Amino acid sequence: MNLDHVAVAVSDAEAARRVFSDLLGLPVVHEETVEDQGVRVVSLSMGESKLELTEPLAEDTPVGRFLSKRGPGLHHIALTVDDLAGTLRRLEAEGVQLIDREPRIGAEGKLIAFLHPRSTGGVLVELSQSV
Amino acid sequence: MNLDHVAVAVSDAEAARRVFSDLLGLPVVHEETVEDQGVRVVSLSMGESKLELTEPLAEDTPVGRFLSKRGPGLHHIALTVDDLAGTLRRLEAEGVQLIDREPRIGAEGKLIAFLHPRSTGGVLVELSQSV
Repeated sequence: MNLDHVAVAVSDAEAARRVFSDLLGLPVVHEETVEDQGVRVVSLSMGESKLELTEPLAEDTPVGRFLSKRGPGLHHIALTVDDLAGTLRRLEAEGVQLIDREPRIGAEGKLIAFLHPRSTGGVLVELSQSV
Repeated sequence: MNLDHVAVAVSDAEAARRVFSDLLGLPVVHEETVEDQGVRVVSLSMGESKLELTEPLAEDTPVGRFLSKRGPGLHHIALTVDDLAGTLRRLEAEGVQLIDREPRIGAEGKLIAFLHPRSTGGVLVELSQSV
């Protein structure tokens, strides 16, 4: 299992891009608006994995509510898996609390599902399978 | 600049290790008590980068105070640099707020320094140089 990305919730993706790209030198590799998740995403390369700056499209979205409650900062990590549906079934059988019981389509057309932080040391974990 | 690790603040590193290692399959690659930072660290491989489970040795430590205030969860990311002292001077000249103005010794004997989240989109960023 590899790290695909670390996601950060930001109120201003352009300001965050200036810091991480212009000052820290991480190259921008992808930009996308994911209507389904209510975010604009700017992805920067950190070697094998990416830093995803996610700016909410509206306050009433998961990332918008996170920002209102906790302020900007680290939001979740995404790990790659080969067989997402099978992994979800196995984790559920082990008692891990799932946010998504079935894979759904995320950014860049990948299959994704989130695990509940209650089961993962307070960390929101996304599992992601390339298609 | 590559991602060295993602650090998670946990109250119970053994419980978190069971989830990330036994259930999610990330192999444990290193364990260390870093007295200087007041933490016990269990590192798991996520491919090129690591997930560091950090458990505070006492409440009155940076990670202990983080747990009291925000609960368990994502704490910081660490990026590798070739020349840490030079990078800190350059960032300071660009107006980035530093927590450590000079490199200090971190886990595994690396030179490290932290940037203030106020300058980095709410993300606590560690810069790390192998020696």
